[in-house]
Amino acid sequence: MKAYEVQAGSKSLADVKLVERPDPKAGHGEILVRIRATSLNFRDQMVVEGMYGPAASAFKTIPLSDGAGEVIAIGAGVTRFKVGDRVASTFFHDWLDGPPRADARVSLGAAGVDGVLSEYAVFNAQNAVAIPPGFTFEEAATLPCAAVTAWHALTVVGAVRAGETVLLIGTGGVSVFALQFAHAMGARVVLTSSSDEKLERAKSMGANALINYKRTPDWEKEVLKATDGRGVDCIVEVGGPGTLARSMEAVGFAGRIALIGAVAGFQGETNPRPLMRKGASIHGIFVGSRAMFENMSAAIEVNGIKPVIDRVFPFAEAIEAYRHLKSAVHFGKIVIRL
Amino acid sequence: MKAYEVQAGSKSLADVKLVERPDPKAGHGEILVRIRATSLNFRDQMVVEGMYGPAASAFKTIPLSDGAGEVIAIGAGVTRFKVGDRVASTFFHDWLDGPPRADARVSLGAAGVDGVLSEYAVFNAQNAVAIPPGFTFEEAATLPCAAVTAWHALTVVGAVRAGETVLLIGTGGVSVFALQFAHAMGARVVLTSSSDEKLERAKSMGANALINYKRTPDWEKEVLKATDGRGVDCIVEVGGPGTLARSMEAVGFAGRIALIGAVAGFQGETNPRPLMRKGASIHGIFVGSRAMFENMSAAIEVNGIKPVIDRVFPFAEAIEAYRHLKSAVHFGKIVIRL
Amino acid sequence: MKAYEVQAGSKSLADVKLVERPDPKAGHGEILVRIRATSLNFRDQMVVEGMYGPAASAFKTIPLSDGAGEVIAIGAGVTRFKVGDRVASTFFHDWLDGPPRADARVSLGAAGVDGVLSEYAVFNAQNAVAIPPGFTFEEAATLPCAAVTAWHALTVVGAVRAGETVLLIGTGGVSVFALQFAHAMGARVVLTSSSDEKLERAKSMGANALINYKRTPDWEKEVLKATDGRGVDCIVEVGGPGTLARSMEAVGFAGRIALIGAVAGFQGETNPRPLMRKGASIHGIFVGSRAMFENMSAAIEVNGIKPVIDRVFPFAEAIEAYRHLKSAVHFGKIVIRL
Amino acid sequence: MKAYEVQAGSKSLADVKLVERPDPKAGHGEILVRIRATSLNFRDQMVVEGMYGPAASAFKTIPLSDGAGEVIAIGAGVTRFKVGDRVASTFFHDWLDGPPRADARVSLGAAGVDGVLSEYAVFNAQNAVAIPPGFTFEEAATLPCAAVTAWHALTVVGAVRAGETVLLIGTGGVSVFALQFAHAMGARVVLTSSSDEKLERAKSMGANALINYKRTPDWEKEVLKATDGRGVDCIVEVGGPGTLARSMEAVGFAGRIALIGAVAGFQGETNPRPLMRKGASIHGIFVGSRAMFENMSAAIEVNGIKPVIDRVFPFAEAIEAYRHLKSAVHFGKIVIRL
Repeated sequence: MKAYEVQAGSKSLADVKLVERPDPKAGHGEILVRIRATSLNFRDQMVVEGMYGPAASAFKTIPLSDGAGEVIAIGAGVTRFKVGDRVASTFFHDWLDGPPRADARVSLGAAGVDGVLSEYAVFNAQNAVAIPPGFTFEEAATLPCAAVTAWHALTVVGAVRAGETVLLIGTGGVSVFALQFAHAMGARVVLTSSSDEKLERAKSMGANALINYKRTPDWEKEVLKATDGRGVDCIVEVGGPGTLARSMEAVGFAGRIALIGAVAGFQGETNPRPLMRKGASIHGIFVGSRAMFENMSAAIEVNGIKPVIDRVFPFAEAIEAYRHLKSAVHFGKIVIRL
Repeated sequence: MKAYEVQAGSKSLADVKLVERPDPKAGHGEILVRIRATSLNFRDQMVVEGMYGPAASAFKTIPLSDGAGEVIAIGAGVTRFKVGDRVASTFFHDWLDGPPRADARVSLGAAGVDGVLSEYAVFNAQNAVAIPPGFTFEEAATLPCAAVTAWHALTVVGAVRAGETVLLIGTGGVSVFALQFAHAMGARVVLTSSSDEKLERAKSMGANALINYKRTPDWEKEVLKATDGRGVDCIVEVGGPGTLARSMEAVGFAGRIALIGAVAGFQGETNPRPLMRKGASIHGIFVGSRAMFENMSAAIEVNGIKPVIDRVFPFAEAIEAYRHLKSAVHFGKIVIRL
Repeated sequence: MKAYEVQAGSKSLADVKLVERPDPKAGHGEILVRIRATSLNFRDQMVVEGMYGPAASAFKTIPLSDGAGEVIAIGAGVTRFKVGDRVASTFFHDWLDGPPRADARVSLGAAGVDGVLSEYAVFNAQNAVAIPPGFTFEEAATLPCAAVTAWHALTVVGAVRAGETVLLIGTGGVSVFALQFAHAMGARVVLTSSSDEKLERAKSMGANALINYKRTPDWEKEVLKATDGRGVDCIVEVGGPGTLARSMEAVGFAGRIALIGAVAGFQGETNPRPLMRKGASIHGIFVGSRAMFENMSAAIEVNGIKPVIDRVFPFAEAIEAYRHLKSAVHFGKIVIRL
Repeated sequence: MKAYEVQAGSKSLADVKLVERPDPKAGHGEILVRIRATSLNFRDQMVVEGMYGPAASAFKTIPLSDGAGEVIAIGAGVTRFKVGDRVASTFFHDWLDGPPRADARVSLGAAGVDGVLSEYAVFNAQNAVAIPPGFTFEEAATLPCAAVTAWHALTVVGAVRAGETVLLIGTGGVSVFALQFAHAMGARVVLTSSSDEKLERAKSMGANALINYKRTPDWEKEVLKATDGRGVDCIVEVGGPGTLARSMEAVGFAGRIALIGAVAGFQGETNPRPLMRKGASIHGIFVGSRAMFENMSAAIEVNGIKPVIDRVFPFAEAIEAYRHLKSAVHFGKIVIRL
């Protein structure tokens, strides 16, 4: 089969190669999936650039965690799926339900664990989910990392209630899903961006208050104004320490900050003092469990949510897709179709 | 002032009298409210008929728990409100936040605790809430009992997540609010009624699956069909033991039944066995705390929810309003305007 | 290997036979365990008597869910255990973590799913847990059903806090574990029994208030006295509808009743009205997940808890062990040693 | 009456004066308490030194939040207490139950809100609690700030389960209460101190693993060793940013850090990255609600916990008590008796 490989020690896109690999087979408990679409996350760029932890690019690896396709063969003992089923990958191996566990931290597309940027992939049947009815493969391929992260942040860690206010930072993949979910959950959304055009688009999707953080660098004050001084109840914090200090000012009493933060890296430091007086909290988020994925799919179906796809690239132009991600002009998800 | 009184030992509407009472005054920590609208709940009919517990109609009492009006005087030490504020009553005295407590069970409009069917009423400032912006007094007067009950059931006891399925029984005040809230929260709603017309109306408000329980007396089977055999995640059970046995069949694994049940009384008995296999639960609900009311008001505001008012009666025709409630032809709330 | 079988259509112990079976082998993902000890639960008696659901005794089955032993072989792909590890079975197949699910309801020792009353047994490696350090096999064999049930009731459904009061009914396997756990958690325990001798023994294990329900048939009034009229915070309700009506009187505001109830069967009916006023709840409990088992084992280890074993029978006298269970004179668990 | 006053703009103990004040009276809803004992917290030293926020020492204030005494008069409308009741103060005004709220942040003994270092004090009846049966006034006076903080950290924010591991830093007032509570809850305790003598004392109170952080400055590695590499489930983090970086290494998957941290101040900064991979969280803690106090008192009573009192000073030597606190040689609480 054809597959892309991130070479060991990869530092840039020049180290990503299109290669021929043996066709995989479904062993005991496994399913063989013909991949029909994949999507890119910021993490995938970090893997290629050698920035995603020391081990992430130490091995030759088929990249990307997010894939969708159809089951074309099943191994012995598989009852969860049958040939012809439409499935998506889960980001982690073996995190089925419950809180994060040390023994369920193998993720696809890094550190020698092959991902889905290939014609076929094999998954343990436990590590795939049915895709929401009516979804195309392109749409389904956007879900495993960014959407599950947003869902985990809002519904598990944030436990956001209808009527509460959520702050979203920027319009990357996680934030746009968070906007759709928060809106469906009856929450109020305050959203920041550096682009008035993106703010307008977010408004059309239901964002209630909009802040251009280029024009208003101390945006936390605007957030407080937009909430009558009370601060927000939940923040999907994708900015990292660079924005975290402002987020801790913007959060209200008993507020919850879901810390994702790959985008701005984690070079800075910050002082957590503002949490104390307000009884607020910061929660590390790392994608989510299979149960979160399935619960999210139910919410997507009931609320008729469709992922926002910025652009679809053919498999042959996967490198272009990475470049488009890096340009940071996108709104929503970047998909590669096979 | 003019007020209605339920006479001690009341058995019927004949025992409800329009009387003249001294004008009340706001003492320390209290607010004096000019009542502008009240609403009726099934409980109020039970009080008049001597069916709401042995003590409820043992005393002469101004009836009704649900009132809205404007603050026209405040007592010493009040900082929570000022003259001119628009407020609604809370159902209980002193249940401000946290779980139900034995020492916060005094409710308005029964057992000698005067309610709001009068020109003026005095509340401890702690026992009133600001009404949602843009609400008329008639709209605000629908909230204290039925809406808070529905909110408590869905968001606290039910902890309903977007994408989950909620079963509502009938189209009384609690159920119609629950429909609006569940819809705003991104949940799927299955609703039963004996009237196709009411089912149609519920559908137009967002109900996803509809069951006429007159035509389908074993409606629990229809609920299972409507959920691919899985059962529902939460039931707002207003029917009491008469419907509870069916509800326990209709609820799914880890499902939660919020037991309200005044309407059908509680004469029957039932066997809770179906809860065991499914890990399901039944939770007694008795209106809710002030914090629930305030959280609900935020959700109402963010989601632009408007109470469904069946009919508004003038103060002089309050007895007619009771009769209309008893006829059970209404959809939504019955309001008395002052 | 030697094994006991419950014959299809079993109605009594006469239908339990000692037979020869082929030695099992560990397939992909499986472990082969030499069983060293098993324990009996009330459920196992019901299976033999054809009372545990229509399907439970429809098939020829090796009975008992609770076994402990050593891993003597592992199949391909197993990393969770190695040869020589000491393990216990989990009651359910594939309920690893999270809330109860419809697709994780296969349990050992009923309905054609072979249990552990045999020299060897094969488990999927996911469906076994390491036994607590320092435990004998006899001790470990007491845990999978009764102890996990008690843990589930107190820590998950009951969410019992130090300082809260727990009511335990009788001194069967679940209640005795619940006594040990509740005591270790800093809760206060009220315990009922028909035997003063058993009450004394419970007292020596930390029970704080004792009620002989034979002498005091309306024991719920004693429970209220023992709690200054407030009622208890959590009840591990093993009595079923026969005692549930009293439990609903004995439970306090916001109290939780964990419904287990196999012992008294479920023939009666009851009226859930008392739940409403108090905001109390009833939760069906059916053993628990692997995560609950592992969390419980940690608590057992930290607190130096040892299971109370009533009596140990040799494998050859397994039928006697069943008879001893039926006699109901035991205090704690009945074990069969291989 | 006699009272101590912290003078406006206080910078040191020289600014604390013993003065004569008019005897206070109980107004509507208030109780007059003859103070019999008070206790010191680190915060009280900060108030005197002008380090507890800009406003804390801007006004002339009777210091100390923690007092116990007997009710000697009640104002109109008080039903919660009667003359002769033994009560303790709550740290905050009007935080009765539920999550932290912006409108319940007035605390005793700072910023012009008179505290309890005086012969008499007046409280709103809502802002006092009954002291645990059998407690002396000295014992009761240790509870309002440090003990409630420890309880909030372990049971609300930490939601610590029996069998989980708790890390305590040092042996100040909060840590020693946390040791007693964690032990009573069935948790395992790892405790650090700079003094082997204090470690020994902690061991005798139930601490399971001990680390001298003077001898082992990178104590987080010892914590990991003491937990087989898993890290701890909950940390009562009283050290502030100076220790927080190590705490984030020492916490395990899904672990919770309760951030209190007054002792080391909050001058440093830190990088929250380790939270992400592990799904761990940091929660700001600021004492707690009246409900937490009452729940804690129940746990204290059921488990026979007695506060560890380092030393009791007479009222006339209150300044010496402050000096003793500053010396940091104490183990447990410093009390002033009236």
